[in-house]
Amino acid sequence: MATIKDIANRLGISVSTVSKGLNGASDISEHMRQAVLDTAVEMGYTTKQMRGRDRKKLCIFVENMDYETSEQFGYDIILGFRQAAARENYDTTVFPVTPSFQAAERYDTYMLKNGYAGAFMVGFALQDDWMGQFAATAIPTVLFDNYIKKNPCVGSIGTDSFEGIDDAIAHLISLGHRRIALLNGSPHSMISEQRRQAYMDSMTARGLPFSEASMPYGYYAADAAKDYAGGLLALGVTAILCGNDLIASGVMEECNRNGYQVPDEISVIGFDDIPLSAQLQPPLTTIRQDRIELGKSGFYTLHSLINHVSISRTMLRPQLILRKSTAPAKPVKALTP
Amino acid sequence: MATIKDIANRLGISVSTVSKGLNGASDISEHMRQAVLDTAVEMGYTTKQMRGRDRKKLCIFVENMDYETSEQFGYDIILGFRQAAARENYDTTVFPVTPSFQAAERYDTYMLKNGYAGAFMVGFALQDDWMGQFAATAIPTVLFDNYIKKNPCVGSIGTDSFEGIDDAIAHLISLGHRRIALLNGSPHSMISEQRRQAYMDSMTARGLPFSEASMPYGYYAADAAKDYAGGLLALGVTAILCGNDLIASGVMEECNRNGYQVPDEISVIGFDDIPLSAQLQPPLTTIRQDRIELGKSGFYTLHSLINHVSISRTMLRPQLILRKSTAPAKPVKALTP
Repeated sequence: MATIKDIANRLGISVSTVSKGLNGASDISEHMRQAVLDTAVEMGYTTKQMRGRDRKKLCIFVENMDYETSEQFGYDIILGFRQAAARENYDTTVFPVTPSFQAAERYDTYMLKNGYAGAFMVGFALQDDWMGQFAATAIPTVLFDNYIKKNPCVGSIGTDSFEGIDDAIAHLISLGHRRIALLNGSPHSMISEQRRQAYMDSMTARGLPFSEASMPYGYYAADAAKDYAGGLLALGVTAILCGNDLIASGVMEECNRNGYQVPDEISVIGFDDIPLSAQLQPPLTTIRQDRIELGKSGFYTLHSLINHVSISRTMLRPQLILRKSTAPAKPVKALTP
Repeated sequence: MATIKDIANRLGISVSTVSKGLNGASDISEHMRQAVLDTAVEMGYTTKQMRGRDRKKLCIFVENMDYETSEQFGYDIILGFRQAAARENYDTTVFPVTPSFQAAERYDTYMLKNGYAGAFMVGFALQDDWMGQFAATAIPTVLFDNYIKKNPCVGSIGTDSFEGIDDAIAHLISLGHRRIALLNGSPHSMISEQRRQAYMDSMTARGLPFSEASMPYGYYAADAAKDYAGGLLALGVTAILCGNDLIASGVMEECNRNGYQVPDEISVIGFDDIPLSAQLQPPLTTIRQDRIELGKSGFYTLHSLINHVSISRTMLRPQLILRKSTAPAKPVKALTP
């Protein structure tokens, strides 16, 4: 477990300043106090002072999402949630949940049994058992990238896929691209469905061609590119939008293997802006989700539901990050076998 | 201006308790302290202690909306915003704005000139001059019941009209109604357009008939009923959804004047749940918007924008409040001339 000295080293400040931050002393700035508390939460430091007396318990359930290291998509979402929760004196447990666990245990029962005041759900798929139960739960619950109609106890948090996809397509059009594909993530995901719809809306609005073949579902991993990138290149597309940055990294590799230079012959755009994006060769143009803020907004939405304020949806704006994987469209060449 | 004694009288507590609440003493409950501060804000009480040293300034611009007394729609929205802002050490100015003022003064210029950190806009119509300027403003701005695409400095707050209208129509169907009209508010309003779409979606999904004639635009005042209620009754509808509670009050009066009993012959549903709703005869079934929480959420969204967190939209859930203006559908009778 982290010590005060670990926190001081991470922040490059003295042990006594860390101590002041943790104890709420008034002679350090509010900004520094927040940095100390946020870092203490991230590093797993806990003391009685931080715990306070009346701490309540929340749970983050994670399925189908990597979150253990700061390189992974879920890490900042969960960190942002835990940091915001700690400031309001909540303790947060992170619980990786499986389909078989959901089949064996009802959501409400598990929550009541464990005394949780509310939960944040990340990575759930449409067919998950608990998704069906959220329509009627009376427990304050916030879903990342999922939505439940009409239940005043359930809220939703996410990034606006429609603006993100449209920004990316507008950028590609400004570079002269017209044949643009979407290699999506997994089906059975609300967010994949939204991005597909966003792609169709945006291509339609701009008078560009698309078809079922130009917008296949894959899955949210680099390997998806092996199954689908060749087919998209054979269609003669000059740009490929990807469901996330991992897919985009696989697509860049497949393009190279097939003798296509990125970005000179094919432009590639990712989604999320995980740390990997900037390290790829070429660095990846991508649609950024602010994951720390998604986590914090997830907590604030849950906190509102716990206080009987029925927020149904909080949406954050995406931001298109321009790097080197997009360039002016070149004439299409035939697929090298 | 209110005194400490006025606050004590309003809350039915002692002057010394009010004093403790205002000065942050630790021997009263957090709940009581909030009640004291909220009431002080509502009553316009200000002291140096409340002001603090580094207060920042926000502005609420109001157009086309009554907000001066607690009976009026805008009162609680503005109160909720001001209460939430006061807790974070912001001073809030309320500024009634006209079309001619907007034509004479650019929004960004006015904000910079007056040193405002951000603004909350209520009651704006689609054709307002400033609405065009919000697409490019760099000033943190939150719009109640309006939406601006892709500007990371502008957020939106509102109640989900789609769920509200669908809940109301589901309720009427459960009472046997099939011929249901929507007497909408003003055109040139994003929210009127949404409610019209919500009505069409819900009627279509449930296989019920509707036409242009069954969903006229009116305006957000009781008098709109004089122009439109007769026409709707002549269509043979058995229920009328209204754009707000004022329109509904006018519709009930017009029904009576035309010899239709509410609710025995015509069911009427309002929107908003302003205090008037419960006092009408019969008391009005209506779709509630939690206006204090809308105001508070408006502030929190603005506060996020000021801190460079780009929340595009915060939506609250509506709640159908069942009173006495809806009843089982009766066979239609002809319009009495």
